[in-house]
Amino acid sequence: MTAPFLSSLSPTSPLASATAPFPGSRKVYARPADAPHLRVPFREIILSDPGEAPVRVADPSGPYSDPEATIDLRQGLARHRASWASARGNSTVTAGRPAPSEGDFEAFPLTYAPLRRRDETPFTQLEYARAGVITDEMIYVATRENLGRDSAVAGACARLAGGEAFGAALPAHVTPEFVRAEIAAGRAIIPANINHPELEPTIIGRNFLVKVNANIGNSALGSSIEDEVAKLVWAIRWGADTVMDLSTGKAIHATREWILRNSPVPIGTVPLYQALEKVGGDATRLDWAVFEDTLIEQCEQGVDYFTIHAGVRLAHIPLTASRTTGIVSRGGSILAKWCLSHHRENFLYERFADICAILRRYDVAFSLGDGLRPGSVADANDAAQFAELDTLGALTAVAWEHGCQVMVEGPGHVPMHKIKANMDRQLATCGEAPFYTLGPLTTDIAPGHDHITSAIGAAMIGWFGTAMLCYVTPKEHLGLPDRADVKAGVIAYKLAAHAADIAKGHPAAQLRDDAISRARFDFRWSDQFNLGLDPEGARAFHDETLPHAAHKTAHFCSMCGPKFCSMKISHDIRDGALEGADALTQAGLDQMSATFRASGGEVHLDAQALDALAWEGKPAR
Amino acid sequence: MTAPFLSSLSPTSPLASATAPFPGSRKVYARPADAPHLRVPFREIILSDPGEAPVRVADPSGPYSDPEATIDLRQGLARHRASWASARGNSTVTAGRPAPSEGDFEAFPLTYAPLRRRDETPFTQLEYARAGVITDEMIYVATRENLGRDSAVAGACARLAGGEAFGAALPAHVTPEFVRAEIAAGRAIIPANINHPELEPTIIGRNFLVKVNANIGNSALGSSIEDEVAKLVWAIRWGADTVMDLSTGKAIHATREWILRNSPVPIGTVPLYQALEKVGGDATRLDWAVFEDTLIEQCEQGVDYFTIHAGVRLAHIPLTASRTTGIVSRGGSILAKWCLSHHRENFLYERFADICAILRRYDVAFSLGDGLRPGSVADANDAAQFAELDTLGALTAVAWEHGCQVMVEGPGHVPMHKIKANMDRQLATCGEAPFYTLGPLTTDIAPGHDHITSAIGAAMIGWFGTAMLCYVTPKEHLGLPDRADVKAGVIAYKLAAHAADIAKGHPAAQLRDDAISRARFDFRWSDQFNLGLDPEGARAFHDETLPHAAHKTAHFCSMCGPKFCSMKISHDIRDGALEGADALTQAGLDQMSATFRASGGEVHLDAQALDALAWEGKPAR
Repeated sequence: MTAPFLSSLSPTSPLASATAPFPGSRKVYARPADAPHLRVPFREIILSDPGEAPVRVADPSGPYSDPEATIDLRQGLARHRASWASARGNSTVTAGRPAPSEGDFEAFPLTYAPLRRRDETPFTQLEYARAGVITDEMIYVATRENLGRDSAVAGACARLAGGEAFGAALPAHVTPEFVRAEIAAGRAIIPANINHPELEPTIIGRNFLVKVNANIGNSALGSSIEDEVAKLVWAIRWGADTVMDLSTGKAIHATREWILRNSPVPIGTVPLYQALEKVGGDATRLDWAVFEDTLIEQCEQGVDYFTIHAGVRLAHIPLTASRTTGIVSRGGSILAKWCLSHHRENFLYERFADICAILRRYDVAFSLGDGLRPGSVADANDAAQFAELDTLGALTAVAWEHGCQVMVEGPGHVPMHKIKANMDRQLATCGEAPFYTLGPLTTDIAPGHDHITSAIGAAMIGWFGTAMLCYVTPKEHLGLPDRADVKAGVIAYKLAAHAADIAKGHPAAQLRDDAISRARFDFRWSDQFNLGLDPEGARAFHDETLPHAAHKTAHFCSMCGPKFCSMKISHDIRDGALEGADALTQAGLDQMSATFRASGGEVHLDAQALDALAWEGKPAR
Repeated sequence: MTAPFLSSLSPTSPLASATAPFPGSRKVYARPADAPHLRVPFREIILSDPGEAPVRVADPSGPYSDPEATIDLRQGLARHRASWASARGNSTVTAGRPAPSEGDFEAFPLTYAPLRRRDETPFTQLEYARAGVITDEMIYVATRENLGRDSAVAGACARLAGGEAFGAALPAHVTPEFVRAEIAAGRAIIPANINHPELEPTIIGRNFLVKVNANIGNSALGSSIEDEVAKLVWAIRWGADTVMDLSTGKAIHATREWILRNSPVPIGTVPLYQALEKVGGDATRLDWAVFEDTLIEQCEQGVDYFTIHAGVRLAHIPLTASRTTGIVSRGGSILAKWCLSHHRENFLYERFADICAILRRYDVAFSLGDGLRPGSVADANDAAQFAELDTLGALTAVAWEHGCQVMVEGPGHVPMHKIKANMDRQLATCGEAPFYTLGPLTTDIAPGHDHITSAIGAAMIGWFGTAMLCYVTPKEHLGLPDRADVKAGVIAYKLAAHAADIAKGHPAAQLRDDAISRARFDFRWSDQFNLGLDPEGARAFHDETLPHAAHKTAHFCSMCGPKFCSMKISHDIRDGALEGADALTQAGLDQMSATFRASGGEVHLDAQALDALAWEGKPAR
């Protein structure tokens, strides 16, 4: 099989629409004063009102959205981060293992010798942080997190200080030292395999912007390498901060190589899936040797974080027997099958320290998998789920001892009233390691709309402290997501993450809301579209009823029409445009307020007095 | 203009798809033992597993989903409720006013003489409730609310008793007496104008199922009578419990008449919109006479509840001057303009008792409008909003004194951390009158996806105690919703309302989730589709990757494929289908659990011990 689109960006390529410039936006790079060799990417949305400053937003889309970048998928992205690691001088080149034979799938055309740690001097971000060293990655993410935070602070916008953070501590300004301290404490991670030099690092922790992960990957029944790379570029266009390649079908290695070489975002995987393919799909034939082989293979390729289901212990499995939906994690069910058929403890649990030893050689971060997460609201917060979470807490401590970065995966299906207990228990059990949750779905009754049932839970748990939200698409439970589903899922989760940032009181989050609200109030329609998460979708909706260009400056929309437009009337009121009206000019307002205050400022008239007044038909005031 | 589709149900009619039978479902009617003349509708979803009882769900779709009903839109629905009211013998026929001339729009072909209260004996549901009288409407809604609640209680399903209700008191079984008491206390309303005999009554209150309202209505720029009636039928098909006709364009009277005569759900309006049309769109020309005329006109037609923006007081308007988005309620902005241009208090406030006197003659319920609701997260919970809410509390008491039923409208745009304050303040200020909120939207940055930004807030405020959620469609802020938007909006809100019911611990809500989860676990794909809110959409998604009929019984889906299907593996585990496996048979489980308990039941091994064990490669247990 060849991969025709990969060699070019013809207009018919699925990548063409995925790399078109965002309307009204420009790609900008910040160069941190303390590390001018770094170029930290943002998207700036330029507004039509000269009085409005451009709005800077996070941009995980990488060079694909940079009109000056040359994209050649057969070359991969620029390996800009290679020099950061080599400057540290503590890595060494290894021979690397040959790529497995995967039939007639086209392999990525270039090969690179893998790197690994050279010695016991600090190597992982956690080790550097503990040693008091600020890495380039830390400076990079600090710059990235600040967005327009300086201007927010400078603007003295008091309301940005609001919010309820449930113990999170969001700084007014993110410094590299703050990043270092958070990583040293285990509260944040920068997934950044030394063998993924194409990476633009990002940070995951509850004192930073809430991140979103998108899952892609083929399965035995569909998809192809082309589809998966295009999905990656598509997912990051809409804002996915990390991407997991959950492929379980053919050509897993080659698919992953194409993805990694072309990915500016951290890539996560579940190595167990490939290990299972290596033993012909028979879970009972899994063993440490094949798993170890798979780990090293993926570490050498550059995977940034691994889901490891080491918490699915033999003793936990009986706790799932009375569940409504059993075990719904693929990894969890595979390991449960293995445990029961061998009458043995999960070998990932037994070999956990060996796994740590491998991951620390490449600085691959752990994502401790919740193999026993509930698959229905009926099973939420049950003994199996929490027994596993407690185990994950113990494993977090082990990984930290080995100098590995760790985040912990969370449910799943959880009704609203049981969400906070998950967050609180995770914080307490796992020493504040970042929580990374799937959804959670707050009801089971809406297949086809589970991006929404889960966005509700995701926004809430993000508010409560989850560091990264794993998206759910409309196809959840029904089939493999396509491009439309990926976009719908990412956008639902970006808005949920943003709602969480606002509720936590993130110092810069509301800048974008306020800019869009001003655009809305001023009838700057194009600005409103461009400031949104989905400029194309918003414009298309507006075009459906008001397609003409002139309508993009109209002081009304089709929802209410000109006569009933509340915002137009509000402007009339403020502008004093009403003939003889007591408009809301500042002088008029001051006088009115003064009168109001002089009268006692009472707006709550008691019912009887009001009643009497009204019956008499007299003005109540 | 003629309305061609209204006379028939040809396959090309927009109503054909809106009235097609739900797959796997049948329409059933319950006849309450204490009132066998009532027929209370439900939809029963029949499952393919003979061991699974049918699942009974709320069904606001009326006769349109009854294959035995004859639908003739030119005749209107059967006036089944007329006999309930006439049996009470306290109404009288009035002459009624002639329908206004509205050009060449086709009027509804039949006319009925309006009814009104005859004397000062109890007439409104509130008056009956206070007098200790249980009406047919109360019996009807009590039966309707119970769904499968008897079987849930009988099933002794302990987990249904969970939930956090924040002071709501959901009974195990809803009795007519419970309904009466809730209405008497003002905590619930049954909007049921005596002139809407086509109505199938429903109850709105926080100790009942959370309800959903859908807004329809034309505007100056689009839509037609046909579109609006079809939208009504479409909205209730997907589960809208009430519908507001917010028309502001031409033929408002005729449109409303077509809607009312064909609506089984309560219809709400904002009479101010029509009043404004009557004065040529010039807000400054509004006065009591034209408003009174409009109120009576709509009361006589059968509107069940009115949004009345009596809380927009002159003194509150200056409080909006520094807002980011001013006044965003149509009604609020119109009245603010009126107040300022006349230098006078809002005439709806001054005339509030007069309005009560009119509404009580027909038992039209108040929906006290929040004309100063915030239109952006920046303006949430500000002085203007809460000043108005306090006023609405005072007006609630006035309306109650007049024997009128009342609910209170709420915001709007509110970030998550400010939502609960709204609910708590409304409960405290408005004497527990039902809260009826629009969204709230939890962020402003996702135009085109505001059904999701707002479903997040809606689920939360529904959990906290809101009785009815007013939907938001994907077109919010961008244009007039079409059929696809209405469906997307209703489904997003039905799932939000259901998530709220579950979180509150509604005794029957989770029955549907559990049934769908069992279907999912058993690979009963058609059952899973049919139990969902959107059977057609779910099936279509499944068909995209596995279109063959055989796949509807397959023990996997395209997401994971057969080898990686966690549910299939879970079954293998439970069934003991693994060769030589220690499967989760009851005997095997008992033994395993016993061993586990005998070992101390410790699942949380301390990190150091685990580490040591793992390094040595020994089984940890």
